[in-house]
Amino acid sequence: MRAFSRGFRDELFELMRWRRDVRRFQTAEVDGALLARCLDAFSLAPSVGLSEPWRIMRVDSHEARLRVKQNFAETNADALSRYDGKDADSYAALKLAGIDRAPVQLAIFCDDATPKGKGLGAGTMPEMRRYSVVSAVTLFWLACRAEGLGLGWVSILDAPRLARDLGASTDWSLIGYFCLGYPEQEDDTPELARDGWEQRASALEIRQV
Amino acid sequence: MRAFSRGFRDELFELMRWRRDVRRFQTAEVDGALLARCLDAFSLAPSVGLSEPWRIMRVDSHEARLRVKQNFAETNADALSRYDGKDADSYAALKLAGIDRAPVQLAIFCDDATPKGKGLGAGTMPEMRRYSVVSAVTLFWLACRAEGLGLGWVSILDAPRLARDLGASTDWSLIGYFCLGYPEQEDDTPELARDGWEQRASALEIRQV
Repeated sequence: MRAFSRGFRDELFELMRWRRDVRRFQTAEVDGALLARCLDAFSLAPSVGLSEPWRIMRVDSHEARLRVKQNFAETNADALSRYDGKDADSYAALKLAGIDRAPVQLAIFCDDATPKGKGLGAGTMPEMRRYSVVSAVTLFWLACRAEGLGLGWVSILDAPRLARDLGASTDWSLIGYFCLGYPEQEDDTPELARDGWEQRASALEIRQV
Repeated sequence: MRAFSRGFRDELFELMRWRRDVRRFQTAEVDGALLARCLDAFSLAPSVGLSEPWRIMRVDSHEARLRVKQNFAETNADALSRYDGKDADSYAALKLAGIDRAPVQLAIFCDDATPKGKGLGAGTMPEMRRYSVVSAVTLFWLACRAEGLGLGWVSILDAPRLARDLGASTDWSLIGYFCLGYPEQEDDTPELARDGWEQRASALEIRQV
């Protein structure tokens, strides 16, 4: 029996409130033991059938990072071309990835073919394996922020090309490319809201059936 | 600038350690204000382009619950038929959903067609919207456990049939069916591990490129 205090619960929500998708990083290195401690969140994450289908690559080499950077630049230029007028101007002004500076960069995949868990829970919804990886990433995100580290999730990428460029197994699908480091600034408001791109909904609607 | 103490970080990992996928519930009701407080986690969750694509249905009516129960029973029987020998015996002995007793039941969807966020970040990876819902659910899961509530994620379902049965919009895809209530017991080890179905990996592998 493990109970949590009101004070802890309040601070947990404070942590959620101060978690950001970070795109602007300091160049300061991240201590290896600190990073390992944050990555421990993966081993506590939920996964369908205990399949633990996350596969993590740390992208350090100059060549690999260059390919990621090119992939993002081309994909982002294509995304920009789909907006018109004011939206195009707004989009062009956004900084959407910290690939240029983030000291730690991780490509995280889902192994769709893992035998672990013997397929339990993933028969009719095989996407549950990918969702398990997303849950694990979310715990990792909180762990990072609790340590003062910022994480940025980059999805403006040609995912199959990135997987090929990094030599991932053909059974692996990219869940996201993650930039990690100390943020330039901290904020309790999403950067997209501060930049006027979109705002949070004012209330959560629940439909009853 | 919002920093978190070592004590808080340790307790955050304790929370992750005691989070479980719960299938055995007490019948005790969940207070409405308490549930609302946990659901506040959604409004702090990350979402691609600030699209906030989560759509939540609270399933209360006898008829709707009966349909979910039938859906699960048939899908689970089909899943069982795919195992042989010892695995089939083990699978049959598992309790995989708390639909029979959980006082609160939520069907959570992703609106794949939401205009919110203007498609940002979801051009090449439209699955990012669904991943956003999974991230939000993960924060909600932690919030629930911090309040002593157990959450169980049911994925052994015919998802399109469930969406139809509940009258979901055709643009919505089911992310999961969630059972919520006070757990019969608390544990720091997953039920699938206790039951011998699968164990957690001993270490997290990181490949460097």
